[in-house]
Amino acid sequence: MSLDSSVSKAAKPHDVLAAGLRDEMRAVNELIRERMASEHAPRIPEVTAHLVEAGGKRLRPLLTLAAARLCGYDGPYHVHLAATVEFIHTATLLHDDVVDESQQRRGRPTANLLWDNKSSVLVGDYLFARAFQLMTDTGNMRVLRILSNAAATIAEGEVLQMTAAQDLATDESIYLKVVRGKTAALFSAATEVGGVIAGADDAHVKALFDYGDALGIAFQIADDLLDYQGDSGATGKNIGDDFRERKLTLPVIKAVAEADAEERAFWSRTIEKGQQDEGDLEHAMALLTKHGALDATRKDAFGWSCKARAALEILPQTDLRDTLIELSDYVVARLN
Amino acid sequence: MSLDSSVSKAAKPHDVLAAGLRDEMRAVNELIRERMASEHAPRIPEVTAHLVEAGGKRLRPLLTLAAARLCGYDGPYHVHLAATVEFIHTATLLHDDVVDESQQRRGRPTANLLWDNKSSVLVGDYLFARAFQLMTDTGNMRVLRILSNAAATIAEGEVLQMTAAQDLATDESIYLKVVRGKTAALFSAATEVGGVIAGADDAHVKALFDYGDALGIAFQIADDLLDYQGDSGATGKNIGDDFRERKLTLPVIKAVAEADAEERAFWSRTIEKGQQDEGDLEHAMALLTKHGALDATRKDAFGWSCKARAALEILPQTDLRDTLIELSDYVVARLN
Repeated sequence: MSLDSSVSKAAKPHDVLAAGLRDEMRAVNELIRERMASEHAPRIPEVTAHLVEAGGKRLRPLLTLAAARLCGYDGPYHVHLAATVEFIHTATLLHDDVVDESQQRRGRPTANLLWDNKSSVLVGDYLFARAFQLMTDTGNMRVLRILSNAAATIAEGEVLQMTAAQDLATDESIYLKVVRGKTAALFSAATEVGGVIAGADDAHVKALFDYGDALGIAFQIADDLLDYQGDSGATGKNIGDDFRERKLTLPVIKAVAEADAEERAFWSRTIEKGQQDEGDLEHAMALLTKHGALDATRKDAFGWSCKARAALEILPQTDLRDTLIELSDYVVARLN
Repeated sequence: MSLDSSVSKAAKPHDVLAAGLRDEMRAVNELIRERMASEHAPRIPEVTAHLVEAGGKRLRPLLTLAAARLCGYDGPYHVHLAATVEFIHTATLLHDDVVDESQQRRGRPTANLLWDNKSSVLVGDYLFARAFQLMTDTGNMRVLRILSNAAATIAEGEVLQMTAAQDLATDESIYLKVVRGKTAALFSAATEVGGVIAGADDAHVKALFDYGDALGIAFQIADDLLDYQGDSGATGKNIGDDFRERKLTLPVIKAVAEADAEERAFWSRTIEKGQQDEGDLEHAMALLTKHGALDATRKDAFGWSCKARAALEILPQTDLRDTLIELSDYVVARLN
């Protein structure tokens, strides 16, 4: 594939992808608009349009389209699968905002705030069902298995996060399960089904899965790290939001693993019991630095980014493949 | 099939079905227990066990098993489909209780009360995903289409009910869409997939669909009628619950259609605006009687029961078929 020459060399890899796949993304958006309609219940397109048209990066459907094209697909169904992936993503956002009692999403008030929790729960269910209908259009049983497995992993990861987030016994292996559930499972399903629908051989399908999995994990670890050391102007988040919300993310898990009795008591009070006083965030940062937790977390993020790059090496070299590799560099580049 | 002779002639048709399909239901329950487990998130089986083990009549999976056997199926996958149908049903119950802010279900506190709304939303999502995984085990694309369509109809019906329930413009055709969503869509999908997995011909599959659809509608109309004229000892509901909860059910829709200006103002105040005073329920009952709305609703229920019976007539006469016909009589017999 030849990527759009109007996109400059310095452009973000995500924008390069979007430009190169512009026509197919237009078809995806058309299909999304068509399938999120409801003849009988106008509340449904109201709620979904609010979220879908707010933009978002549409990274997941782009990954599906890119994976299918990388494997030489020239049929119509990667568009269905890309829309399916976006529907599943949108449904989980609607339900997440109910679960987290969120007020804002993509810079706009959340649907649960604009309408109510009921609408968010039921419209999310509708989108899940529509996602499964869309998949059956492909007639491909293997993509149905992959995406229903991903949906189960996502829900399981969310339940796990809810119960593990404030429990100091949460270790790195549980963290990884939560991250796969909240981010990587849909990334890896998105890339894998692109390969499957193209009829790619098992090694290439596995490479695409591994790429999506590692990309999603790198992305999430970078996000968790930026919460402690990001530039709030660039990330739109305030330093320490996760600490204040008592989220046990990777930097803290690493610091807890090295903690002495006194430090453990500090984490237990601030994260498990949620009793936070002035100066606690600064003390937490000092402990993260003392135990090298931020550096170790950064290394992990770069490690997953490397795995993503390595996975794609067995695929034929094309501009598209190289853009996907650049994307995996890009998600951790913001850590420098 | 020969039905269990230990069940007396006077037994309820549902119990006759359950006795005749005892071994297969045992396999369904085993599969449900196995698939609702979660290696990583113990909250999931806690919540689902609370609901699944509370009993419930398991009517929907029984319908799937019965339909498959009626069509001579002797493979293993009707068990998967029956479990799928029960998973979808259980997921919708979990989400309904969040939406309705319910306190009790099957005589026990609801999951949203015992745990929290978050758990109900996320565990419901998990069960939906598990339902779709179970379906893919069958390798049958047609049953996947039927059940994903049913899931979309259910969610759409629930949204419609939420927005239409307190709107006097709701007419009988909208009521029917809501009823198909909340009850009949899963009944008809349950019976239809039983026929499809058995490889039944199109006429028999259509008959099974029509039976489930009409049975579900008869069941729901009877329920709505009993709310106004039932014996609270037998139904476990208090007369007028729907009126107090401002639900625009079929008897009221019929009375509103015949209302003069003054009566319309009464319905608008009590249902649309929810301003109810002492004596309003009695006045509502008087209006229902005045316009013959209760009799007309009863006739509708019997009409759908008849349609259910008629649908099955093209299937070969067996004890099992006759039990299904008795079931369609039974759901309206409580109206006499």
